[in-house]
Amino acid sequence: MNYPSIFYINGEYLNKSQAKISVLDLGLTRGFGVFDFFRTYNGIPFHLYDHLKRFRKSAELLGIPCDIQQEDLENVIQKLMKLNNQKEAAVKFILTGGEATHSLMMESTPTFICFILPLLIYPKSYYEEGVKLITLSHTPYLSECKSLNYLPALLSTQKARQENAFEALYVDRNNFILEACTANFFAIKQNTLITPKENILYGITREVILKIAKNHFDIEKREINYNELIEFDEVFIASSNKEILPVKQIDEHCYRAPGMQTQKLIALFRNYTKNYSQLHSCP
Amino acid sequence: MNYPSIFYINGEYLNKSQAKISVLDLGLTRGFGVFDFFRTYNGIPFHLYDHLKRFRKSAELLGIPCDIQQEDLENVIQKLMKLNNQKEAAVKFILTGGEATHSLMMESTPTFICFILPLLIYPKSYYEEGVKLITLSHTPYLSECKSLNYLPALLSTQKARQENAFEALYVDRNNFILEACTANFFAIKQNTLITPKENILYGITREVILKIAKNHFDIEKREINYNELIEFDEVFIASSNKEILPVKQIDEHCYRAPGMQTQKLIALFRNYTKNYSQLHSCP
Repeated sequence: MNYPSIFYINGEYLNKSQAKISVLDLGLTRGFGVFDFFRTYNGIPFHLYDHLKRFRKSAELLGIPCDIQQEDLENVIQKLMKLNNQKEAAVKFILTGGEATHSLMMESTPTFICFILPLLIYPKSYYEEGVKLITLSHTPYLSECKSLNYLPALLSTQKARQENAFEALYVDRNNFILEACTANFFAIKQNTLITPKENILYGITREVILKIAKNHFDIEKREINYNELIEFDEVFIASSNKEILPVKQIDEHCYRAPGMQTQKLIALFRNYTKNYSQLHSCP
Repeated sequence: MNYPSIFYINGEYLNKSQAKISVLDLGLTRGFGVFDFFRTYNGIPFHLYDHLKRFRKSAELLGIPCDIQQEDLENVIQKLMKLNNQKEAAVKFILTGGEATHSLMMESTPTFICFILPLLIYPKSYYEEGVKLITLSHTPYLSECKSLNYLPALLSTQKARQENAFEALYVDRNNFILEACTANFFAIKQNTLITPKENILYGITREVILKIAKNHFDIEKREINYNELIEFDEVFIASSNKEILPVKQIDEHCYRAPGMQTQKLIALFRNYTKNYSQLHSCP
């Protein structure tokens, strides 16, 4: 597939060769911008309302005015799917501080970009055998804001790959586990599902998992100490494109992957996404 | 003035309307890129060699291949000055990870951008009366790398301006003063010039100041505790476009600004830049 080929920028649908922003855009020169990312199921944007809500919150945290309305965004996505001839896709939307010369402050109107990408499909073996994580000492800056400042995630992933691991898991200076580079962290101990409460990006997939797990697990949103890793039965990470991805190893700690409880959650999640797209599709 | 009007991107000189990069560039989507910035004196790039050296180091820290040669960069700058009809300017050059779709890793060749800007002239009163700083608790990520991840500096400056201050000064969790949002920090106590040694961006202006101060001051490159602020006689910050900017207040601590010693350094610095441009101009 050659797409993405049609992009949306500030009201216009543009070919790839035209889908460009000024080199003076604060999104480029200062990473001053926010984004969000989700996927479709059966062509239906999954929890778009929640992603847009988080996007607005991210923009607010940076002080970038955001007047994107849900209906308009839905229309843009629908049109992008049609123009790019895609039935299923990942969707990324970005809001930057717009063009500026010297200033560290906004000088003009924000730039809004939206485009679709092929679904990122990870190898089946990742789900059948689990992935390996390493831990790195790091406390994300402004963790609640999904900003364009993504260097720590990129360099941490580079470091993980060098050690034949899939991703890195951030551990803060108090020895608390926070999140993986691009996913939230979950642990299972007997019948309890545990996930960090603070200093993380609040994942939409994380919220869905907590919702569907409610009737099947005891749930603890709390600080998780690194030393607890030895006590967990099962561990997984979760994000829009990874869904529920079992973890077989963190540093020297090994886990059943996928364990029975994780398998149960994966089935519940699959059922949820299926129902979601059926519920939200046009009659 | 309407410039910048001509920009350099990957070998081409482009009008403002064409000076754009792909919305898929990792420089935008992930802030995965580095930059450097300097000014000319009498049209002569000031310490270009040192800026390029630091730029290469920044790129190396991110793993972005950088084959920019000094002679080529000099030619680009000279041509930009001519095409934009400028005799004096600030110069910014950027290297990003290039276009990528999903990956957190580089997928293509880097993007190299260079453009000139009008000199940023601060009000005379800033130098005659000094500026006010506030302190913020923050430890920069990968401080030695001048990356496009500039959110902390932008948000810290926003915060400072809200409190009628010029900039914020970062204090780490050990209570050590590191640097200002976009400048290095210096303090003077009697005849000693003190500046932080580690966990900072190594400013070229900082290096020049240390060089010209050597015969006139005792120099200490060391950790500076916040509690020492009360003991200093004079304080200033320094950067390419600010040069030596006296500080009259940090939180509740007040200083003579500009004090006699700072004035001496300003005169030495002015003399140095004058000589530099004379020495490096074509005969």
